[in-house]
Amino acid sequence: MFKTCLENVRSKSPLIHNITNYVTVNDVANVLLAIGASPIMADEKLEVEEITSICTGLNINIGTLQTRTIESMKLAGKKANQLNHPITLDPVGTGASNLRTQTSLDLIKEVNFNVIKGNISEIKTLVLGTSKTQGVDAAKEDLVNSNNLDDAIKLAKELSKTTKAITVITGPIDIVTDGNKTYLIKNGSPKMTSITGTGCQSSALICAFISANQDNQLEATAAAISTMGLAGQIAENKLEPHHGNSTYRNLIIDTISIMTGTILEEGAVYEVR
Amino acid sequence: MFKTCLENVRSKSPLIHNITNYVTVNDVANVLLAIGASPIMADEKLEVEEITSICTGLNINIGTLQTRTIESMKLAGKKANQLNHPITLDPVGTGASNLRTQTSLDLIKEVNFNVIKGNISEIKTLVLGTSKTQGVDAAKEDLVNSNNLDDAIKLAKELSKTTKAITVITGPIDIVTDGNKTYLIKNGSPKMTSITGTGCQSSALICAFISANQDNQLEATAAAISTMGLAGQIAENKLEPHHGNSTYRNLIIDTISIMTGTILEEGAVYEVR
Amino acid sequence: MFKTCLENVRSKSPLIHNITNYVTVNDVANVLLAIGASPIMADEKLEVEEITSICTGLNINIGTLQTRTIESMKLAGKKANQLNHPITLDPVGTGASNLRTQTSLDLIKEVNFNVIKGNISEIKTLVLGTSKTQGVDAAKEDLVNSNNLDDAIKLAKELSKTTKAITVITGPIDIVTDGNKTYLIKNGSPKMTSITGTGCQSSALICAFISANQDNQLEATAAAISTMGLAGQIAENKLEPHHGNSTYRNLIIDTISIMTGTILEEGAVYEVR
Repeated sequence: MFKTCLENVRSKSPLIHNITNYVTVNDVANVLLAIGASPIMADEKLEVEEITSICTGLNINIGTLQTRTIESMKLAGKKANQLNHPITLDPVGTGASNLRTQTSLDLIKEVNFNVIKGNISEIKTLVLGTSKTQGVDAAKEDLVNSNNLDDAIKLAKELSKTTKAITVITGPIDIVTDGNKTYLIKNGSPKMTSITGTGCQSSALICAFISANQDNQLEATAAAISTMGLAGQIAENKLEPHHGNSTYRNLIIDTISIMTGTILEEGAVYEVR
Repeated sequence: MFKTCLENVRSKSPLIHNITNYVTVNDVANVLLAIGASPIMADEKLEVEEITSICTGLNINIGTLQTRTIESMKLAGKKANQLNHPITLDPVGTGASNLRTQTSLDLIKEVNFNVIKGNISEIKTLVLGTSKTQGVDAAKEDLVNSNNLDDAIKLAKELSKTTKAITVITGPIDIVTDGNKTYLIKNGSPKMTSITGTGCQSSALICAFISANQDNQLEATAAAISTMGLAGQIAENKLEPHHGNSTYRNLIIDTISIMTGTILEEGAVYEVR
Repeated sequence: MFKTCLENVRSKSPLIHNITNYVTVNDVANVLLAIGASPIMADEKLEVEEITSICTGLNINIGTLQTRTIESMKLAGKKANQLNHPITLDPVGTGASNLRTQTSLDLIKEVNFNVIKGNISEIKTLVLGTSKTQGVDAAKEDLVNSNNLDDAIKLAKELSKTTKAITVITGPIDIVTDGNKTYLIKNGSPKMTSITGTGCQSSALICAFISANQDNQLEATAAAISTMGLAGQIAENKLEPHHGNSTYRNLIIDTISIMTGTILEEGAVYEVR
């Protein structure tokens, strides 16, 4: 049950090592605290192995990739693998530059990720080697909806089969699959793309959820995605006409910080295939 | 009309490549989304040319300058020039260190900017090679008001003549000139200097506005400056006595996200010379 | 009086040079503005000596340490020492990695700090060379309360004696000592650890307070810690059940921006030993 997944995060309070971008890093730290986990950010190669060793999970996000941190990501990833720590990858902007595409492909080859979470354009690039791109957002013509859902699920399963990772494709319908069982999450709101950071926050939440639910990672990933989407919906419902994007951003983290297992269980909308 | 300039941003949703500082980067991303544009942040020299190629405009801000990113700024700038993409420069803290002054001068020499936007101390340094400085803020004795307005306009026009860029000098009265025609923008509030990021947000807005109004860049720049200032005024009017700086910061981005062409047209206060 | 200490910050508006982490840097800039100081962030070794020369105080925080910036911290620190500028050190995560521990120890050896502010685990590591660690948070078993208060005071005094710095140990009771006189600050709320950045904001406030009260640095440090804690309390009292962490974060900076000397004087809870 999603309820239990969330409650485990709050009771175990996993310490999450983040190697992430400098655009949304503050949101990532705050969303981890809001869900009951603890964040630590460290990207210097001289310390990442040590830092990841004292943590429960590792969250890698290539949003503002630097050559300096690519090596750090690999070192931390390999150490986390040795220690059997859960690792998430958010391949932000894969497809938008060769550096990002190649780094994501290298990371996937050298590190065993537990979850890879991207938008449809990023995941297409990882599987097919090419894709439309619109910077860090999915190309509009690619967005997953009821018409192309089956193709997207097939794509996600393919990535899971080659990587052994759970694959998440975010979009109007979120796909969460381990290659066999698939959750289709119908929480969320288009308004979430009107602020920066909701995608990065999702990856961080996934890392916290799988770290606190290591024997049940597929469901934990689905629960994390549902938590983020539900927070986006609840926050939207609280908006008044005079409010705007900053209020929305604040309401999302507010909502996550007061979300209980029961609220999640009652608000989660998903289908299992 | 400013109205049309803003509406073009919302309808065209330009993708803006930002090489910017890590202090206000999240505000910059969110203000671009709030006005209807899309942000991408990338500063690694191995990818900046490729990233800028898929974007509509390039926004360079030297707020937390690193030697690592100076080369990235030049590479991206030259590529954007080749592709005729609009480019803005925010020479934050020029005058406060030799590195910043020299980098700004180098950038202006090697890259053709469409708009250069600074406070009076920064622009003085660019034109005269020297200035009073108060860190990243303008020296108080330099601030543009009705007494020294003509001198400041002359200074702005000088920079425009040597660089072919539109020059913006921000302050109590904002000056926007292409060397011939000059807009004096009287929107804004002193309270905007009580939070970090309003200057960086202005530059990002300018980049979005000129990217969506490439045939009308002087007016688009004036419209962007007016949008930011008007948002500062409207936000201030919404403040209650128990509110403080964070509420003000949030209200500004809220206000921009719900600003329409009509609101801007009615609220813009400016004079053309 | 704490009242005078705060009023001096507002009237003198010290310019503070920050070499800090990219997680909470925006909060640090905004809290400095909220208290009436001015922030400048610069961490490039080619400019840090020049930048620190035009400032009143220097605030060093190792929250996202990079080899690149360690040298910058030392250069800026030595320059600030030459110029007799007050310097604060926030040794974030000392004990969590060798790099952080060694860097903190090196900094303390090469630079004379006016104030060193850490949680109990960080200060233990600095004094004893070893400690429990929980990432960037204090180990729970170490937290200072009435049972282990005397030991913690002794520890703080030891660090002050070897470094000649004022030592601050933050926790449920905050300890501020110069090795002789000790303030025990009882403001604050456990809720402050539910958001990122309150510790970094404290260090920045200390730097602003001692910069504006150079002849009275021990009391100024205590006043800064009390200001932050009191803001955390007042903000918490304003929270309604539907509010969450983001609202709390905003309320803290709101509260600081409207805090007066009188509010501080009336709300400060402390004991002098």
